[in-house]
Amino acid sequence: MTPDASLSTALLVGVGGTLGALARFAVDTRFGGRRGVFAVNVLGSVALGALGAAPVDSAFLLVFGTGFCGAFTTFSSFAVGVVEHAQAGERRVAARYALGTLAAALVGVALGGGAVRALL
Amino acid sequence: MTPDASLSTALLVGVGGTLGALARFAVDTRFGGRRGVFAVNVLGSVALGALGAAPVDSAFLLVFGTGFCGAFTTFSSFAVGVVEHAQAGERRVAARYALGTLAAALVGVALGGGAVRALL
Repeated sequence: MTPDASLSTALLVGVGGTLGALARFAVDTRFGGRRGVFAVNVLGSVALGALGAAPVDSAFLLVFGTGFCGAFTTFSSFAVGVVEHAQAGERRVAARYALGTLAAALVGVALGGGAVRALL
Repeated sequence: MTPDASLSTALLVGVGGTLGALARFAVDTRFGGRRGVFAVNVLGSVALGALGAAPVDSAFLLVFGTGFCGAFTTFSSFAVGVVEHAQAGERRVAARYALGTLAAALVGVALGGGAVRALL
């Protein structure tokens, strides 16, 4: 990759990442805590599943896939949420949150991709 | 929150989010695929666990917690990776990747927080 290509690639990921982080913060401010993190992780997984099945070019994927969906969803806040519940002795809540998010996100990816393939 | 406070808050999250998305892209370019996504999710979880136990102010948390760690880690690429393996018939690989990432991130949060508390 030439320096120019690297720079424009970084710019596309950076723009999408900025928007994704701000959108996540907006959802988090609105819904707060575990519900907000669950919502962004499932919605972002549906969106990335759909993007992966759509006939979009690589620049679009860099902005909306790697950039936006990558920054909109988050693993660290999810993991901290699970550990906080476990450390507070709420092991069933922790397990339900962890496995529920995982299951919903995986179903979301499959549904997002399936919906796009059905429409094409 | 006043409009000014909202704007500066968004700016802090946006700056951290941009850097986090670019750092994730750099790791992904270097290690690629599942290994890269695993690395960012575990490293980011260690970092957010450490941040949560550190005596840092709210602006620092917005930049490096909500912004950087949030955008550096990703749930959507993780979920897509799991689904791709499952759809390719590699169910054991999919399960190992899903549960391995989850376990490593949860241990990472606890270790990050524990290390900071031990140092204070």
